Amino acid sequence: MFLMNAWYVAAKSGEVADKPLGRKICGENIAFFRDAEGRIAAVDDYCPHRGAAMSLGRVCNGNLVCGYHGLVMGRDGKTVSMPMQRVGGFPSVKSYPVEERNGLIWLWPGDPTQADPAAIPHYEWANSPDWTYDVGVFHVKCDYRLMVDNLMDLTHEAYVHSDSIGQDEIDLSPVNTRVEGDAVYTSRFMYDIPAPPFWAAALRNNDLADDVPVDRWQISCFSLPANVHIQVGVAHAGNGGFEADPKYKASGVAVDFMTPETEDTHWYFGGLARNFKADDPELTETILNRQRKIFSQDFAVLESQQHNMDKHPDRRWLMLNIDSGGVQARRILERRIKQEQEQGLALKQA
Amino acid sequence: MFLMNAWYVAAKSGEVADKPLGRKICGENIAFFRDAEGRIAAVDDYCPHRGAAMSLGRVCNGNLVCGYHGLVMGRDGKTVSMPMQRVGGFPSVKSYPVEERNGLIWLWPGDPTQADPAAIPHYEWANSPDWTYDVGVFHVKCDYRLMVDNLMDLTHEAYVHSDSIGQDEIDLSPVNTRVEGDAVYTSRFMYDIPAPPFWAAALRNNDLADDVPVDRWQISCFSLPANVHIQVGVAHAGNGGFEADPKYKASGVAVDFMTPETEDTHWYFGGLARNFKADDPELTETILNRQRKIFSQDFAVLESQQHNMDKHPDRRWLMLNIDSGGVQARRILERRIKQEQEQGLALKQA
Amino acid sequence: MFLMNAWYVAAKSGEVADKPLGRKICGENIAFFRDAEGRIAAVDDYCPHRGAAMSLGRVCNGNLVCGYHGLVMGRDGKTVSMPMQRVGGFPSVKSYPVEERNGLIWLWPGDPTQADPAAIPHYEWANSPDWTYDVGVFHVKCDYRLMVDNLMDLTHEAYVHSDSIGQDEIDLSPVNTRVEGDAVYTSRFMYDIPAPPFWAAALRNNDLADDVPVDRWQISCFSLPANVHIQVGVAHAGNGGFEADPKYKASGVAVDFMTPETEDTHWYFGGLARNFKADDPELTETILNRQRKIFSQDFAVLESQQHNMDKHPDRRWLMLNIDSGGVQARRILERRIKQEQEQGLALKQA
Repeated sequence: MFLMNAWYVAAKSGEVADKPLGRKICGENIAFFRDAEGRIAAVDDYCPHRGAAMSLGRVCNGNLVCGYHGLVMGRDGKTVSMPMQRVGGFPSVKSYPVEERNGLIWLWPGDPTQADPAAIPHYEWANSPDWTYDVGVFHVKCDYRLMVDNLMDLTHEAYVHSDSIGQDEIDLSPVNTRVEGDAVYTSRFMYDIPAPPFWAAALRNNDLADDVPVDRWQISCFSLPANVHIQVGVAHAGNGGFEADPKYKASGVAVDFMTPETEDTHWYFGGLARNFKADDPELTETILNRQRKIFSQDFAVLESQQHNMDKHPDRRWLMLNIDSGGVQARRILERRIKQEQEQGLALKQA
Repeated sequence: MFLMNAWYVAAKSGEVADKPLGRKICGENIAFFRDAEGRIAAVDDYCPHRGAAMSLGRVCNGNLVCGYHGLVMGRDGKTVSMPMQRVGGFPSVKSYPVEERNGLIWLWPGDPTQADPAAIPHYEWANSPDWTYDVGVFHVKCDYRLMVDNLMDLTHEAYVHSDSIGQDEIDLSPVNTRVEGDAVYTSRFMYDIPAPPFWAAALRNNDLADDVPVDRWQISCFSLPANVHIQVGVAHAGNGGFEADPKYKASGVAVDFMTPETEDTHWYFGGLARNFKADDPELTETILNRQRKIFSQDFAVLESQQHNMDKHPDRRWLMLNIDSGGVQARRILERRIKQEQEQGLALKQA
Repeated sequence: MFLMNAWYVAAKSGEVADKPLGRKICGENIAFFRDAEGRIAAVDDYCPHRGAAMSLGRVCNGNLVCGYHGLVMGRDGKTVSMPMQRVGGFPSVKSYPVEERNGLIWLWPGDPTQADPAAIPHYEWANSPDWTYDVGVFHVKCDYRLMVDNLMDLTHEAYVHSDSIGQDEIDLSPVNTRVEGDAVYTSRFMYDIPAPPFWAAALRNNDLADDVPVDRWQISCFSLPANVHIQVGVAHAGNGGFEADPKYKASGVAVDFMTPETEDTHWYFGGLARNFKADDPELTETILNRQRKIFSQDFAVLESQQHNMDKHPDRRWLMLNIDSGGVQARRILERRIKQEQEQGLALKQA
């Protein structure tokens, strides 16, 4: 079960250029395309004529043209025209509220009347010229909430990513979790430690020494429906750590959007936003490539969890202090999904 | 549900040479082989000894020899012999009426007592020295009736095959559908138009100019159980079109046989019969290769329809004038399948 | 349904070195690893913390360390430690009785209190310096009992392996089957025949003429849970056959262990033990490579049986004299499985 009345990252802007894109989100097959003004549009990926996937078609004058018999569909899911046919009585298909912000396409899979574009989060790193970022798009064969758990507890870096961002000191540093409304924060601070390979490289990339002790921080923030953004970085030790002057730092925000595809698969959009050398696109690509390897290590573990969950649905997991971030995030999600369903039921009965 | 009392194309002759062929047709696993006279035979692909697939075995003296322990089965599904065994009490497996005509193997999956070889259709293009043809064999992951729909409405050529046989003029020309007994005809005539790439090439292959206006025709004919043959071609404009003298024409019959494998997969036998340059086998191969690309475009669309049908079994499709050929063909099929089932029930109760 | 209270070959020793091995046996996901003394250990492949597969982790000081968050598990399935955690209250996972003998790892998937290492069979060929052997590990997509049938009736060699160990004379020689307690023996003796390719090569490998008539024997022995060992060989004809002096022989024991993975898949460990040129590891590899080809021929037939069984679960197979070995083996298995289940029920009620 998913929270339907929410904005999800559905695609990167570049994935929808002159051709449509078909993608399943929260169980719904959706065709994305651009209208005549280049604005993003999203409709049910289903031709009302004979059921072909609209995303196999093409875009013409800002409408989506079915690749089978040429039914022309507008961004509202209504048939605009079809050669030699009167289309007045054609049934419409669902259209979805969809918005584009700073290179990301956001979809609202639920009740369109409740969709408020102003509720799409505003991120400093996405809007400031001091920052740059990129995310990769990954199809992961597990429940999206397993990825939320993963990102709300970075203890795993010491094990899953021991060759890049992991280091033993993570294990030895306590975490702190707190809930603020529908947001959850988990933080960990480490002092006077060596920089692990990923951050040593980032220090070098930022023209800083990488062979001196550093202070390191990780501050994960979960927000609805399934976004986790993590302030991460290192500063030369003794300069204030997270609060240090930028000249001592290599840091950024690990940007993670999880979008359910089905109950046990999801789309993962992940990357790093940074405010050093923001004008170096080659460095952006280098960092994302390092992360691709890191993410693939996560996917192997998460898919094994999914497999074991399917085999032993009755077994309960432990809830340790390190798991608290994920546990709290799931509670918020569950409460909101329940609310949404009760609200839907009430509307039906009214 | 399939029409069982009917002749289906099961294979091309060349697919059953000295080795047996295993193929599932209308839900039945069947082993095809040749007897001592080279006559085609078809039996249940199941060894009565230990259930191995007979089609993994070999043919010896016109019998099928199980590849596991050497049970020898005749074309009637009875065990002929087995080393060191008395086989008198061995159970038989089903044998199927099967016939070979002009390079095609025809199977009757239903009640053998009703199988009349004389009911296998006779095609001029298959029997006349003025004609030649070849078909490809394709496994398609959709209900065979979606392919019938496809072939009874060639409007789709303008979209699915815009780079070969499609052209905008198709869309702008009305179609006419008529039913005659259990046959359905859909026709479309276009006048004074450019030849699309496939037909321009065919004109050149027939030593005719390809840069002059042509008249073009498409006359689809559906017959039971799921055969669609389409008279197709172009003639230099103003010479009578479909009725023009052969010297102005490149034309032929698009030959399509659909044979259900399961409820949502089928075998597709498709190619072009032509009566120009009939003695040029290289041209036959060239044309079939052009068609392979065309067919693969169809498969992508049809499989997306199947996917959407599975997801939304409740949704009804539109029935426009262009769909009329497929709609009528499905009605005939449904009526005949219902008749067949009632007849079977009556026989059981009698 | 499997016999659970039994020793199964689970892996070759070399498959579990410094990394853990995950393998499903009798429906249970199991992680194998070595403790600090190098002794083999087997636990449920499930981390009690968050359900990740323990086999994705690493081994440290003889314990298994979860690759997700570092939970340290001992060979008894109990949590030894976890960074920053008190683990006293952590639930244990199941550990399995497991033993290593002569290059093979044996697992007892059932009730641990009934596991007696002394019940692991002792094989002369595995313990004598005069002998050598190797087995391959194969994943086969069929019920393990189909492989038992296969090995208890070597008639199939004449058909399935006609290019290696098969020859027509097999077919013409009667088999004898007898039951001794829970063991079943099937034997066949052939006299004054040519050596088939596999055995001709073995004669040459043993510096014996391969172009003279031989006597050949096959004595299959089934023992619980699903082991079939076959005395096989040829001797120059007229020297006593199976009883001949070794100087006239190329012979050995075909070693086959079948270990269920699921109801319709199994792990197959197969090879040849021999007492000629036992000190020639290159010959061992040569023979195993010849066998790999032979086994793959079996797999194709067995998987076709499985497919036909699934399609026609109601059909009964013939039980000929040649099938008697497999039939008797299945009866013993069924009886023992029934006993085991009644015993389990009685224990529960007590």
